[in-house]
This record gives sequence, C-alpha cells and structure tokens, in this order.
Amino acid sequence: MCGIVGFVGREEAAPILLDGLSRLEYRGYDSAGIAVYGEAEGLQVVKAKGRLQVLNDLVQGGKTVHGTLGLGHTRWATHGEPSDVNSHPQVSENGRFAVVHNGIIENYVELREFLQSEGVRFVSQTDTEVVAQLLEYYYDGDILDAVVKMLGRIQGAYALGIVCADCPDRLIAARKDSPLILGYGDGAHYLASDVTALIKYTREVCYLDDGEIAELTADHLWVYDAYLRPVEKERHHVDWEISAAEKGGYEHFMAKEIMEQPKAFRDTIFPRIQQGRVVLDDLQIGREELEGLDKLYIIACGSSYHVGVAAKYTLERLLRKPVEVTLASEFRYCEPIVTERTMALVISQSGETIDTLAAMREAKRLGARVLSIVNVVGSTIARESDDVLYTWAGPEIAVATTKAYSTQLALIYLIGLYFADLLGTISREEYGRIVDELLLIPTKLEQILENRKDIQYFASIYFNHPSVFFIGRNIDYAVGLEGSLKLKEISYIHSEAYAAGELKHGTISLIEPGTLVVALAGYSQLFEKTMSNVVEVKSRGADVLGLTVASKAEDMAKTTDHTIVIPDTHPMLLPSLEVVPMQLFAYYVALQRGCDIDKPRNLAKSVTVE
Amino acid sequence: MCGIVGFVGREEAAPILLDGLSRLEYRGYDSAGIAVYGEAEGLQVVKAKGRLQVLNDLVQGGKTVHGTLGLGHTRWATHGEPSDVNSHPQVSENGRFAVVHNGIIENYVELREFLQSEGVRFVSQTDTEVVAQLLEYYYDGDILDAVVKMLGRIQGAYALGIVCADCPDRLIAARKDSPLILGYGDGAHYLASDVTALIKYTREVCYLDDGEIAELTADHLWVYDAYLRPVEKERHHVDWEISAAEKGGYEHFMAKEIMEQPKAFRDTIFPRIQQGRVVLDDLQIGREELEGLDKLYIIACGSSYHVGVAAKYTLERLLRKPVEVTLASEFRYCEPIVTERTMALVISQSGETIDTLAAMREAKRLGARVLSIVNVVGSTIARESDDVLYTWAGPEIAVATTKAYSTQLALIYLIGLYFADLLGTISREEYGRIVDELLLIPTKLEQILENRKDIQYFASIYFNHPSVFFIGRNIDYAVGLEGSLKLKEISYIHSEAYAAGELKHGTISLIEPGTLVVALAGYSQLFEKTMSNVVEVKSRGADVLGLTVASKAEDMAKTTDHTIVIPDTHPMLLPSLEVVPMQLFAYYVALQRGCDIDKPRNLAKSVTVE
Repeated sequence: MCGIVGFVGREEAAPILLDGLSRLEYRGYDSAGIAVYGEAEGLQVVKAKGRLQVLNDLVQGGKTVHGTLGLGHTRWATHGEPSDVNSHPQVSENGRFAVVHNGIIENYVELREFLQSEGVRFVSQTDTEVVAQLLEYYYDGDILDAVVKMLGRIQGAYALGIVCADCPDRLIAARKDSPLILGYGDGAHYLASDVTALIKYTREVCYLDDGEIAELTADHLWVYDAYLRPVEKERHHVDWEISAAEKGGYEHFMAKEIMEQPKAFRDTIFPRIQQGRVVLDDLQIGREELEGLDKLYIIACGSSYHVGVAAKYTLERLLRKPVEVTLASEFRYCEPIVTERTMALVISQSGETIDTLAAMREAKRLGARVLSIVNVVGSTIARESDDVLYTWAGPEIAVATTKAYSTQLALIYLIGLYFADLLGTISREEYGRIVDELLLIPTKLEQILENRKDIQYFASIYFNHPSVFFIGRNIDYAVGLEGSLKLKEISYIHSEAYAAGELKHGTISLIEPGTLVVALAGYSQLFEKTMSNVVEVKSRGADVLGLTVASKAEDMAKTTDHTIVIPDTHPMLLPSLEVVPMQLFAYYVALQRGCDIDKPRNLAKSVTVE
Repeated sequence: MCGIVGFVGREEAAPILLDGLSRLEYRGYDSAGIAVYGEAEGLQVVKAKGRLQVLNDLVQGGKTVHGTLGLGHTRWATHGEPSDVNSHPQVSENGRFAVVHNGIIENYVELREFLQSEGVRFVSQTDTEVVAQLLEYYYDGDILDAVVKMLGRIQGAYALGIVCADCPDRLIAARKDSPLILGYGDGAHYLASDVTALIKYTREVCYLDDGEIAELTADHLWVYDAYLRPVEKERHHVDWEISAAEKGGYEHFMAKEIMEQPKAFRDTIFPRIQQGRVVLDDLQIGREELEGLDKLYIIACGSSYHVGVAAKYTLERLLRKPVEVTLASEFRYCEPIVTERTMALVISQSGETIDTLAAMREAKRLGARVLSIVNVVGSTIARESDDVLYTWAGPEIAVATTKAYSTQLALIYLIGLYFADLLGTISREEYGRIVDELLLIPTKLEQILENRKDIQYFASIYFNHPSVFFIGRNIDYAVGLEGSLKLKEISYIHSEAYAAGELKHGTISLIEPGTLVVALAGYSQLFEKTMSNVVEVKSRGADVLGLTVASKAEDMAKTTDHTIVIPDTHPMLLPSLEVVPMQLFAYYVALQRGCDIDKPRNLAKSVTVE
C-alpha cells in the first residue's frame, strides 16, 4: 500500500529518490521520508507527514541531503496514524539501521513486547519499527546474518529496503507477498515497489521473488535465497514509454485514462481477432480439458471483482458451465470447492494485489488451473499463472480504475467466444454477430466520450446528493456495482448498487425526496421490469438519472428526470458501453465537489496488504 | 404489497373491514379505503391518504357507512403517488364497479390508451383503475362474463376484489401470483390477502390458486377456473392464536419478536432432534438422490437471502457440494444452470414473496427438486414445493424480520447436519458437538437478550452517525449483511456491509473521523485478519463498535471503542448469536431516532410485487 524506492550509485541520491517517490505517490501519500548516507554526514533521515511536496520543500528538492546511497518511502497508513514519527524510514534505537517497508508485520505486537523486555525503547506505533530494532538486536558485524535472523522472526507480508550505517556502500532488500523490483543502471542499482519509479533511469529490471534477499552496491547486484545461496535472476526489459505515465494535457490521470479507453479496448481486442475469429495463441488449454471443466471460479477484488460479476452472466450464458465469482479476500478462508477440473480465472490490474495473489495460490494448491487477466507484464500473478492474457491498457495511474476495467471486460468477451467455439456452445451466426459488434465497440466508445458534456451537466445537477443508489437487473446490475464504486472512491458519497428487484426487500426505506437513483436499463429484455422499479422509487420522491440504449431512450425518458443514452449493441457487450458514462459521472461529480481525484483519501493504487 | 379485505354477510360490513385492515396495515399504509353497498345508499366509496386512522376517523369507525357487503384496502404505492384519488377502491366511470387490487398490472398503459380511445375518462394514475374501467367496458348484464373478459386482457400479478352495484349480494375475487384467502363464516364469507385479517372471525379458510375466480355471497362460496368450471377447494384450519398477533406488553412488535427468538428457535429445533439425532421425517429425499446432487441453489430475497449467504458457508463446509445463493429477482433472468440433479432451496417467511415464488417455479421448470423453508403453513411456496420445512416462528408482524431469520437459520443447521449424515461427510464427533451446541443456543440467546441494556447504551452513543459500515469475514460477513439491512430498514441510516478484506479496494475512501464501523469478528479463525482491517479503519478515524465471542473480547477491546460480547459457541452456529445484538442495535437506534419501527416508510411485510 506504500511506495518504496532505493538508489546506490555515484550521483546524489536524494533527488533521484524524490523523483522516484513522485511517481509512486499514487500508491500512498499520507507521509513520506528518505534516508541517505553521506560520508561526512552519516545516516540522515528526513520525513514528514503530508504530501510528498512537504518533504520536498523540507530538503529543498534534495539539495540539503548529501550522499550517493539511500531509500525513500511514501506511506499509506495501516498501523499507526499518519504522523512524522510513524513515517518511514524507521530507524533502530541507536540509529544504525534505517528501514522502509511495504506490507504488514502481523506479529509485531509480540515482537515489540519481546524487544521491550530486552530493554529496547520504541518511538513509533508502526509495525515497521520492530524490523529496524530486530536488525539492531541481531547485528554483530554481519549485516546479512542479521537480516536472515530478522526475517526468521517476522510474519506477514513485506517488501523491505534496509540501509546500515556500518556498511554504507550497500542496500539490502527482501520480500514476501509484496512486490519489489530491482533495476540495473550504469554504475548504479535501483530498487522500487513499482516499475514506474524506475523507468526514467533504467529499462533493465528483475523481479525479486518471495523469500529472496538482494544486496545492491553501485557496481554489483546479488540475489540470495533464504539460506543465502546465490540465485540467478532473469532480466526483463520494460517497454512502457515514460510519457504514457504522464497526464498529456488532461487535468487528471483519471480523465486521461477514461479518454484512452477506445484505444485500450482496440489494442486489447484487435490483435486477437483475425479474419473474424478470436485467436488466443497464448492459451495452452485445449478442448478436452475445457469440456471436462466442472466450474470456473473467478477470483478478484474491487473493480476487477465487478468485471467478474459481469463475466458470470456472460460466461454462463456462452459456455453453460457453472461460474462462481468470489472476493479474493473471502476465497482463501471459505474452504472453496475446487477440484483438478476447476479453472480459476484471476483478474488483477497490477498483478500484485495481495488478496488475489494469495487466493490464486490457494486455488493452485487445491488443483485448479489458473488463467489470469493482468495488465502489468511480468507481475507476480502473471508469472505464477498457468496461462495469462494481458490487457493492453498501458500504465494506469489514477487510483480509480477505468481503462483496466474496460480491457479486462474485453478479454472476458474474447475468452467467452474462444471457449464457446471450442465447446461448440455457440452458433456460427451468434459468434459472428458478437465479433462484428465487438469490433464496433471502440467507435461507439468514442461517440459516448464525445457527448461527455451531457454527463458533466447531470453531475452538476446531482453532485450534492448525500446518498445515491445504482439499480439495474442482470448485466445492468453488474455495471451498477462498478458505477457505485467509482462514485464512492473519488467523491466520498455513500452510494450503493442494488439488483433493481431487491431494493424493495428493505433498502427502499432509504428512498426519500431528493435521494438520487441511477437506473441502468440498457438490457432490453428486462427494460420493463427495471422500469417498474424506477416507478417505485419515483413515487417515493427519488430523483432518477437513467441510462439506456438509444432504442429505449424515449420510453425511459417518460419516467426518469434525466436520461443518458448510449448506442445499441449486442446485449452481452453492453457493460463496455454503460460503464463509461458511469466513470464520467463519478469523475465530474468529484470534480464539482473539489475532491482530489487521482489520489482519493485512504486509497492506494495497488493493494499489497490483506 | 397492499392489503385486501372483503366481507359479505348479515352484519354491518364497515366495522369488520376496518378491523381487518388494521391487521393488514403492516403490509402497506400510505392510504386506505373501503367500498360498501347499502340498500338505501347504493355503492359508497370512502378513501383517504395516510394511515388507516385517517379513514377510520372519516367514517367514525364505520358508523357513517351502512351495508352488509364491502371491500377494504390499505395501500403501499407502486403506480401513482400516495393520494386520495390514487387510493383503492378504484371505481369505473359510471360508478358501477369498485375494485381493490394487490399487485401490478404490467400492461396498464396500453389498456388505458385503448379505453381512452373508446372515450373512457380516467381520474387516477393507478394501474388498478383500468381493471374497473375494463369491467364496465365489457359488462352487459353478466358480471362473471365481464370478469373473465377483463382477466383475459390484463397482464401482471394481481389479487382482485370486485363489487358491482348491479349484483349487490356478492363479491368477486380473482388472483394470479398474489395471495388471496377466502374465509368461511356463519352466514358470511370473507376474503383477505393475509390470514391475519380473518382469524378474529373465522379459522376455516381456503386458498385461491392462480387463475381461479371466486364468487362469495352470505350463504355460498363458489370457486371457478378461468373457464368458469367449478373447482372443489380444500378447506384449511388455521391454528395461530390471535393473541400471538398482538404486542403482549412490548412497545413494538419488533421488540416482542426479538425477545421471542429463544422460544422460536427452540420450537423449530427441539422437536426435530431426538436422542442426539436430527430427524426430518417431512423430507422425502434419500441418500442416493443427495449423492447425485450437482448443486444446491439457494433462492431468496432480503433477509432470507442473507440466511442463504450464511447457509452457503455452512452447507459447502458440511456437504462438500457446490452451493450458489442467488437473489430471487435475478435468478429468473440469468439463464441459471439448473439440471435435474439440482436442488433449489427456497427461503421465504410469508411463502408468498412473488420474486421468490416466480424463481422457484422457474427452477422447477428447469428440473430442480425444490425444498422450501417457510413460516406460513399452506402458503403458495409451501404448497408448490417438493419438500417443505416449516419454521415454527409463529406470526411475524414487524416489517423488519427477526425471528423468521433466526428460525430459517436454525433449519439450515438441521438440513446441513441431516444431509451431511446421509452423505457421510461429517464425523460422529463433529456431528455430536454441533448438536450439543445447537441445543444450548436458546439459552445463550436468553443471556444475550438479558444484556440488551448494553446495546441500548451503544445505540444511544451512535444513533446519530449518518453513515455506517458493517465489516466481517466469512460467516461474520453474512451476519453483517443482515445487521446492515436491519439498520437501514428501520432507522433510514445508509449503512452497508462489506467483506472486511474488500473494504480497502475502494470503499475505505468513505471512512472519515466519525464514521461508524461495526466490526463482526466472532469467527475465531479469522479474528486476527479482521482485526487488521479494524486497525485500518481506526487509523482513519472511524468509531468502531466490535462484536466478538467471550474468549476474544479482551483482545478486541484493545482496539475497538466499544465491544459487544456474545457467548462462545461452535463456529458454524455463530450467526444465530451474532444476529441478535445486531437486531437490538438497529431497534434501539431507530427508537432513539423516533422512527416508526414496526411500519417503516416505503416498506411492506410481504412483498407481492416484482
């Protein structure tokens, strides 16, 4: 949930660390800090509560802190409130060790009590401080030895960066269940929790694996296993353009990423459709194995989970195989019924979401074959899957996902068509119809985006409603879930999505004059049913903002206060068109409310704690 | 969603109608009306917006309206806002027909346009008015003929009561997908949408079935099919004591019903446990059929759906069979994968919930075997199921369900144990442990209820929080869903339940100082994991009201602001103990806020529209 960056080389470290942190700030930003070792100055630690800018000002862009080795950290508080003292780096009592940490040390209370009984004094409420203190406790001249002993005691998830004043030419790094990337520079080495912090400096990276320890100097990089045996790492080349990680004229990354969706959809779909057929050469699974599947288990969190909810409707319809969608954080502990004939479909933008990763490992352990949908090439989930399909969304910076959602959905269609074709559960005509429509989606998305001023107008009317409900049936409900989450995330309005027919079983008591109900009714087969529910909320005084397809727009407008109209399409593909106005609505509402759109409070882009 | 009552006999009708309506008021209460035929006065219709008391005052308890035949209606608005003119009975243009209706006429717009083109003038916005006008349109001296023609035109769900000024000695009734009960009196007959309206007058009833038409005079009761062929109805005797439908010293039915839970649980469980074994003689299903099951599909709405969510955890664990829980309103239209080896487990208090009934019929059509859990004996769902297990909760009057939820859950345990035993998926020791604990639950419930003042205190602290989140993992999450719904229904606070691990994937952005988080962590295996999430919300300023078992209470209290403690029990049975403090919390919060607890706005007890 935090961001880590490290540098060792021949240049001044502080400006590089601050620049790296600025690219990681979207991962956590309630406080930030750096530790730099200078020959004259020794180990200097500067940290501050608040945005990175506060720290930046404090050290004058790095000018006041000298030295060619250091660590930086930007934090999203889990243990201990945001404050100077709880910021990272955390330092051992005598100042020898400085540590930055991403993750949670689960047994920190027990470890702290132990160290306190040994006379160690603690200054912060963080779980991280025990790491620094433990290193100090175990240290007797051999830093790696102390690291191994410390790692033997801590439980939980972590990416750690360590510097020791006694060995001021090297950084130590270690990871378990929390990503850490090492970069190869020219007379320099880097470490970071996310590749975006490095790409300005190097494209050559390797990914530290669970249980591994790295030792970095200006000229060397060693990786060891838990027993300090050397490990040979594979180097990866990173393709992303740095410009792709910048805003390109938009006020917010979120706006930019919303607008990029036609392209992202195209990039994800077009290369995989050849002569009217879906081609997924990357997949190893064959017809026999598919036919034998007893179940498809979709595992994901947040917006990816909402893709899963839509996917259940789509894939059950196409494949006539049972599909179960489950929150990754719940999957591990519910004794899921998984057999060797089960396929786990794992969805994650970052490929590092710890809940999803842990659930995926559990599914594998139980015998499932894992197919993942991931945006970040070489991420842990991608590497550990049996098959992986990449969304070609490019880097996504805004915390609230938009183009990742859209491209994940695009891959669901492709998987559905490809599997249905193999299984023979789709007619040639229907297959052709869907493929034809699929190729039109990017153009229709462009139409919707062109009309975004309408949505901005609706947002300016409704932005001040304290309570919002999104209702819809079937696949419209799936999109309602995502629309509601978008609004929550960035506008801090308590909104909730309901299956339209379920509202009356209790929650309708919340509807009063002035409540906003966003009614999704693009799915024509159930249009009348959903409109019955719209009438129910209207007769209780709700304001209703409707969303439907062009052919139903006139009908809907008779009842709703305002209506968002999207082009007609194949019902299966509706979510791709419906979600975009929902993203825009959330965006404009948040804009109107003056919220910090790209970096909403409390949230981090890639959730690497449980 | 509305209440219907009808009387034909030799006494004055109005007081009987008003008394019957008073017992139905919990089903809908934004307006009420009566139609009475008097020899001197002709057909008199009196109706009024607001509570029944408004109507009662208007007619001086019935004294100002004379006649021995009539219909009454209490309404919960679906089509057309609550108003005098939209109240029922609805009358045809020339006043010959008066109609009361429960349900929705789906094609009323089209019918209205047709009648308008024929010169008929409409006065209300209701769908019901078309029924009265259609009867007038078709009437040429034969009332049953007009009824049959009218029924041939309307689509949707309905229970109808009809009176015609030309045949002032008889009532006509018809139903489709909406319950209607006929009562046999002494020189009198009754009709009602719910048996509670009748039990003061008669215990002898029959249930009108879909497509049937009834004709009632003081001395005769005929039932016909759609072709007017006579149908022989089976009479039922109703056992419920009328006193059971009164408050018995409590301020609200909800309080009374919460307090009745130990008894209701006992009544449901004890007769079905004999010598340490679960005995479900009512079930026809055998071991072979059970072994062949490919899936258990749980179908329900509202609180019953939340029983289903808990049941999934329980039944998958016990039976190692896939269990899918689905909202009834969604089931019908998602092309569910149901085979002849699928069991549909249908849960409904009233046994008349239209969404659930329709979904059940769809499941049957697809070949599923239906086992239902129902409270009302002889209700439609009970009658149409292959197997039915009754909850012995007695009549539940408060709109927000409590004892029905608890007894439904109790039956889930029994079903789980019984099936697991048949399947051999449970050890003798575990079976014995659970049965032993099950027998202790009523006593533990009594302990919890004795300590209700604690909950009242917490409610008095937190009642004014505008936004509440319920978090928990696994079975704690299932209870959180129900706790949140209870609070919503009666206190009108926007609350929402989240799987504790999922909160950080977006919704945590809503947590700010003063947000109330109710953290359920009774499930010991995941206590630490849930507490990690509690720490996350605490560090963002949330107030946390925790709920856990006695053995974890001290641990939890270190982090939470307040802690509700329940007795330890077998983890599977936890929801039964956890839900009661959640019900009490909702009750006391609503009490503090001055809400109308037994009759929350917009809600009806038994939801008989889609």
